[in-house]
Amino acid sequence: MSEILVVGSLGYDSIETPAGKVDRTLGGAANYFSLAASHFSPVRVVGVVGEDYQEKDRELLTSRGVDLSGLEKKHGKTFYWSGAYTKDMNEAITRVTELNVFGDFNPKLPAHYKNSKFVFLANIDPVIQLQVLEQVDQPMYVGSDTMNFWIQSKLLELKKVLTKVNVVLINEGESMMLTGASNAIAAAAALCKMGPQAVVIKRGEYGFVLYTPADGYFILPAFPISEVIDPTGAGDTFAGGFFGYLASLNRVPQTKDLKQACIKGSMLASFTIQDFGVNGLAAVTKGHVQDRTQAYSRVISLEDSAK
Amino acid sequence: MSEILVVGSLGYDSIETPAGKVDRTLGGAANYFSLAASHFSPVRVVGVVGEDYQEKDRELLTSRGVDLSGLEKKHGKTFYWSGAYTKDMNEAITRVTELNVFGDFNPKLPAHYKNSKFVFLANIDPVIQLQVLEQVDQPMYVGSDTMNFWIQSKLLELKKVLTKVNVVLINEGESMMLTGASNAIAAAAALCKMGPQAVVIKRGEYGFVLYTPADGYFILPAFPISEVIDPTGAGDTFAGGFFGYLASLNRVPQTKDLKQACIKGSMLASFTIQDFGVNGLAAVTKGHVQDRTQAYSRVISLEDSAK
Repeated sequence: MSEILVVGSLGYDSIETPAGKVDRTLGGAANYFSLAASHFSPVRVVGVVGEDYQEKDRELLTSRGVDLSGLEKKHGKTFYWSGAYTKDMNEAITRVTELNVFGDFNPKLPAHYKNSKFVFLANIDPVIQLQVLEQVDQPMYVGSDTMNFWIQSKLLELKKVLTKVNVVLINEGESMMLTGASNAIAAAAALCKMGPQAVVIKRGEYGFVLYTPADGYFILPAFPISEVIDPTGAGDTFAGGFFGYLASLNRVPQTKDLKQACIKGSMLASFTIQDFGVNGLAAVTKGHVQDRTQAYSRVISLEDSAK
Repeated sequence: MSEILVVGSLGYDSIETPAGKVDRTLGGAANYFSLAASHFSPVRVVGVVGEDYQEKDRELLTSRGVDLSGLEKKHGKTFYWSGAYTKDMNEAITRVTELNVFGDFNPKLPAHYKNSKFVFLANIDPVIQLQVLEQVDQPMYVGSDTMNFWIQSKLLELKKVLTKVNVVLINEGESMMLTGASNAIAAAAALCKMGPQAVVIKRGEYGFVLYTPADGYFILPAFPISEVIDPTGAGDTFAGGFFGYLASLNRVPQTKDLKQACIKGSMLASFTIQDFGVNGLAAVTKGHVQDRTQAYSRVISLEDSAK
């Protein structure tokens, strides 16, 4: 079992979906990632919050053994995002993004973080992603995510990140935007030519595409959920389950490991979307995950269903 | 092995996609369906064409043993459709639909068609679907498809069809339109309450959802194709492979049969989209299908890829 270092946002979200709305609920990629990854491996967080960040929100992570010594507290307000989903739950419409204390964040890793073997650069300014990565001594396996905002505003820096990671996890729409490909299949292959040895394209309710040049495509659907409450954080949850599982193996991942990691990520993400914010994910037990994994194996099995 | 009776359109399509365009190429649900189904079982076609329908287009089907004695030739023009796809290859934008000779089609089954055990009511006026079904003596297994046009214009007749079929195959968007559900998972369950014992929701590049109340969901992705030329007819091809396989078993289908049928449909549909019109499908051999099925089993397999 290896420690995972993650850098990403911690903040508050206001979210509206066809199922209802919530105001200033806990959110941010690093929160979803850490809650998911801590099912498998110890997590170390790098990030920054403002004076308004609540103690109970820190405790949600520390109670799961997540190391927050790399979480700075700065004068000012915490990162804030507001978004809405219409009938198409696969893509959020952003209403407000306030970087706040993340605007001039200059990450400095605590000394004991520097030996982290697994590093995940969650969706954030690629300049910050690079600054964090440079401070890790000898990472064994590095992953990153990104979004349309950085593709449009910091493409050069983002491309530099891609040359330094082993795997990229990215939304389907953004994979096409970044590569110019017209579908996820072509985009995955194109992304591998930009640096990473493996690509995971996240397709929301349609599941994921894993691609490696050596072993080709591995594609499966998401766990079927008939009532989606709030898809926010599903992608970050997927990444957390994915990386948490890989770190628990404590070796350079092989393709079969990446496949299992995609399943772990999918299972955890299916809980995230069943409630607002981190509520669904925070309530998940090992038993829930086991039951759902078993149900999922029936959903994708050509054999007769066991009843 | 049982004969399949299919009623549906035969016509000419003008299609524009990002890969190019074709004018008045052979199309229509019954053509795609028959080309696919005849890989597995004998097919009997019910339909109507105009005086402009070309002999070589009849021969494409008869050369595969498809029975065209139920294909009427009427004074007037053949069914014509014109559509375009933008970057989103999952949904066509219809430019022109000319029903022409299909406008007042009154199907009359040849006597030897009446003993057909497998019946597929392809996307067409639900009134015609009902007229055809009433003329079959004792069908063992009946399926249907439909589209937004009939959902909007003939909902009552369409709902009557649904009470008379064993399985419905329908596009994802149309499954939601018909049920009011906000995703395919909920739509599949809602459709089963409208009559059929099984539902297949076709998701284009994302594959399919099979649902039966007894055995739940079976969900898999499409075969990965990085260069899609023309998605027209993929859904009808899927239905043809699906029904052709079921008819070849010559028994009331069990869930495991429906699962295999979905795979057969997916494999054939993956060839359709690799060329314009019926060209991709018409060129497919048994060997092609076998190779692709083997490649597909690796795409969805958690095991290490065989190299």
